[in-house]
Amino acid sequence: MSILVVGSVAYDTVETPFGRAERVLGGSASFFSVAASFFTPVNLVGVVGHDFGEAQLAAFRGRPIDLGGLERMEGKTFHWQGNYAKDLNSRDTICTDLNVFEFFEPKIPVPYRRSEVVFLGNIDPELQLGVLDQVKAPRLVACDTMNYWIQSKRDVLLQLLRHIDYLIINDTEARELSGDWNIYRAARWVLTHGPRGVVIKQGEYGAILMDAEMLFKVPAYPLEEVFDPTGAGDAFAGGFMGHVARTGDLSADNLRLAMVYGAAMGSFAVEEFGIRRFDTVDRDEVEARVRGFRDLVHFDHGLGGTP
Amino acid sequence: MSILVVGSVAYDTVETPFGRAERVLGGSASFFSVAASFFTPVNLVGVVGHDFGEAQLAAFRGRPIDLGGLERMEGKTFHWQGNYAKDLNSRDTICTDLNVFEFFEPKIPVPYRRSEVVFLGNIDPELQLGVLDQVKAPRLVACDTMNYWIQSKRDVLLQLLRHIDYLIINDTEARELSGDWNIYRAARWVLTHGPRGVVIKQGEYGAILMDAEMLFKVPAYPLEEVFDPTGAGDAFAGGFMGHVARTGDLSADNLRLAMVYGAAMGSFAVEEFGIRRFDTVDRDEVEARVRGFRDLVHFDHGLGGTP
Repeated sequence: MSILVVGSVAYDTVETPFGRAERVLGGSASFFSVAASFFTPVNLVGVVGHDFGEAQLAAFRGRPIDLGGLERMEGKTFHWQGNYAKDLNSRDTICTDLNVFEFFEPKIPVPYRRSEVVFLGNIDPELQLGVLDQVKAPRLVACDTMNYWIQSKRDVLLQLLRHIDYLIINDTEARELSGDWNIYRAARWVLTHGPRGVVIKQGEYGAILMDAEMLFKVPAYPLEEVFDPTGAGDAFAGGFMGHVARTGDLSADNLRLAMVYGAAMGSFAVEEFGIRRFDTVDRDEVEARVRGFRDLVHFDHGLGGTP
Repeated sequence: MSILVVGSVAYDTVETPFGRAERVLGGSASFFSVAASFFTPVNLVGVVGHDFGEAQLAAFRGRPIDLGGLERMEGKTFHWQGNYAKDLNSRDTICTDLNVFEFFEPKIPVPYRRSEVVFLGNIDPELQLGVLDQVKAPRLVACDTMNYWIQSKRDVLLQLLRHIDYLIINDTEARELSGDWNIYRAARWVLTHGPRGVVIKQGEYGAILMDAEMLFKVPAYPLEEVFDPTGAGDAFAGGFMGHVARTGDLSADNLRLAMVYGAAMGSFAVEEFGIRRFDTVDRDEVEARVRGFRDLVHFDHGLGGTP
């Protein structure tokens, strides 16, 4: 199954302790699409300005990413600029120029309206609901959000939660949304508000998946060099949803494996600025990284388990 | 094999968002011994004052913990008081009354001097070296330390590292010791300074084990109620070393399992103030928790792994 993704396409200017990247391709829909395209075709709905050129589009071309829904509007493309601290865990936003993104009203092209798998990137929850109004009968809808919407549009967000299957957010968002510091109670709170499952991303500490039947934890891949954390969460979502869409299998065992694919794609994202690292990744390397996760966490309880 | 542990025995006064415990049994050797005693006999070397009574000793009795090396000195027992923040990740030390612990010079009773497995709790590295001078030919020595010694006795600590097999420290200590922010590079740094393996504890995010052959990660057990984090790291070390000493098996597979036993014992420690939770734990519950870790992290790569 293909995936419909709606979200931001942006220029990012990023400074980390290891260097600076000027106006590289960013945005939630970009990272998600590139990661998911390793698994299944992706239909991207977003908006760019007239300054978005062939060089940027090239990053999508050569992949099964359909840009029929990438609107081009008069004005400049969304530009985000941020600086990361030494530990790469905290960042200061230097500027957020929404530009054409401020006027984004997702229009889903007719051929995409029968999409079975939908990912709603982090945009205004009213727009996320608007996307669902246009899609006929999706089998699986996942969405992301951020603290800004949790604070400013909580009621709309709670309404949205009743229409989605998986919420994919980070730990600070889960805490703010639920009002609970404990991450497992926060996850349980989400499950009582609509979604059948919740994925909580914990940055360098990995991610958890909770649904009615299980709790699964995948660590982050152990990297001795982390270059730029931007987009890791969206790449994670792309790997997770990509594997689910490709297999069409929502069993607990397959969702666990999808989490590991998510973590693998997130780990590639941080190894270079922007989406650059994905230029050199192939499916064999993805599978090798998944085997790496197995080596990292598996153990055999049979060994002298009982005195 | 039995384990010789040398470290602090203390009174802890702890305040968390969930309550307060006044002068409960604490100290690295206490938590370590109680956790390790689920696996193998423990010989404890430490010091207490005359205010340390039968009620406190009762916590050790009924377990295979030999107190022949618990010296009683004129004066008061070490007392630590701390307050935890809401997130339980940071704490303020209100007071550290070393009392008799200030004059502690571990004297290893003759019967313990042939110990094959030794754990050096967090004390002055000169005293840790002094313990090793008294023990004949240990097969396995692990030690803990803290930022205070890393700053004030770095040279002695580096000398000690050349005489131990496993260093078991937390992430901030690993970063300070190595001068490297990246936790995997920090671990590698330790391996180039003597120990054959290093365990880095990451609190609510679990722990990693690195040696020349492998990197293993165990998450923390997912608890919806964490009561008091004090002693979790020492209980972790007790579970890890306890399983290794009981099985006498230093294979990579068995060390992985030892990490999970460590994480299990650490998770019990935080469920009540002090060591209280261990009063109601039995080996069946330990094994059940280890199975819980398996459910938490295992996945099957065979499921539709290749398109």
